[in-house]
Amino acid sequence: MELNKIQTIAFDADDTLWVNEPIFTNTRLKFEEILKSHIDANSLEDELYQTERKNLEIFGYGIKGFMLSMIESAIELTKGAITGQEIQQIIDLGKEMLVHPVEILPGVRKTIKALKEDYNILIITKGDLFDQENKIARSGLAHHFKWIEIITEKDEATYYEVLHKHQIDISTFLMVGNSLKSDVLPVCNLGGRAVHIPFHDTWQHEHLTENDLVNQKYLELKNIDELVNILS
Amino acid sequence: MELNKIQTIAFDADDTLWVNEPIFTNTRLKFEEILKSHIDANSLEDELYQTERKNLEIFGYGIKGFMLSMIESAIELTKGAITGQEIQQIIDLGKEMLVHPVEILPGVRKTIKALKEDYNILIITKGDLFDQENKIARSGLAHHFKWIEIITEKDEATYYEVLHKHQIDISTFLMVGNSLKSDVLPVCNLGGRAVHIPFHDTWQHEHLTENDLVNQKYLELKNIDELVNILS
Repeated sequence: MELNKIQTIAFDADDTLWVNEPIFTNTRLKFEEILKSHIDANSLEDELYQTERKNLEIFGYGIKGFMLSMIESAIELTKGAITGQEIQQIIDLGKEMLVHPVEILPGVRKTIKALKEDYNILIITKGDLFDQENKIARSGLAHHFKWIEIITEKDEATYYEVLHKHQIDISTFLMVGNSLKSDVLPVCNLGGRAVHIPFHDTWQHEHLTENDLVNQKYLELKNIDELVNILS
Repeated sequence: MELNKIQTIAFDADDTLWVNEPIFTNTRLKFEEILKSHIDANSLEDELYQTERKNLEIFGYGIKGFMLSMIESAIELTKGAITGQEIQQIIDLGKEMLVHPVEILPGVRKTIKALKEDYNILIITKGDLFDQENKIARSGLAHHFKWIEIITEKDEATYYEVLHKHQIDISTFLMVGNSLKSDVLPVCNLGGRAVHIPFHDTWQHEHLTENDLVNQKYLELKNIDELVNILS
């Protein structure tokens, strides 16, 4: 992959710069614990995901929508037997997520500092505006980035709009992120470059089939540290 | 108020371009109806507002946070006696709000079309990114505006940041909105001009005391129609 034309590098945030999905995974386990006094089930993950997916269309991404989906699932799965106190416990789980410390991933600080010397670096992340702004502020990394774009969906149209707004030529653009669906595929489809850095924990909604990626040109790295090397 | 230097006019959205607070007011009444089988109270508005205000810090503005605050209030006020079915009814009230048709206020279309001929016109609105983008898209007005800025808080710092980003000189900037606290005061404090168009229904959180506005220079209009006249 030719990288010598790159001028702008955009980073995804959740599970690329800092830990995110494990916080959801941990909450899902605690949610199951709450429900286990009512229902006998090995795993409620799929049931919860179906409610989440149905609600994405009107809630969008983010923790508040996830909290509401947990409450709806709990009511449905227990046929209304869930108590007020238990629903309050679910709300408290969500509130803990909202104030969870931001845990920066290994190598991120060093890489960001090195790359900002030679490139325009950006954050392009999807999700809830309030939550994402909060996390970016608490990360202590915000001042390194030229622009921060919080968008509702990472699809081709939205990437196109963001690049157009900042007058960035797609042939000089590199996207770095952990999601093939949100960070790699739409950018490659627009003619840009992408680096995929897999994270051990990925939300079902971000999964792709092998077919989606046939003929796509992108690079896969194990660690964000390697970015500086492949670019130099 | 000298208005001949104005080049950019920014509009608030909720209750300035389209109806918003009456949708919340209507939902609050239905929420009280649900709780009335559990508790005897004339009005629960204040109790709900206290929960909302406490939660604003971690939820931010928007309907999803309001839904969660209604649920928390309901659990607290009924001492946990609220049922799963009733909480589902509260969630359904919130979902209705999220898909509520966008009702453009009288005179808005005509005024926007007239002003865009001579000014850069923008939307600056606070709230949930997903909800606001959705409403702006459904309003059918989006294409008239040069930029649309959805921000988490309408304070001096955020207005300053938005104006700086778009390289707008504050002395050429006019903000138009229904909230003295969010649309008028911070812009006047920065040295900009503001037009206040009161709306009959205002959320408690947007109320100001008389003192806050002493010595502030802004114009009050009854209807958005009058904007074209005072600017010409």
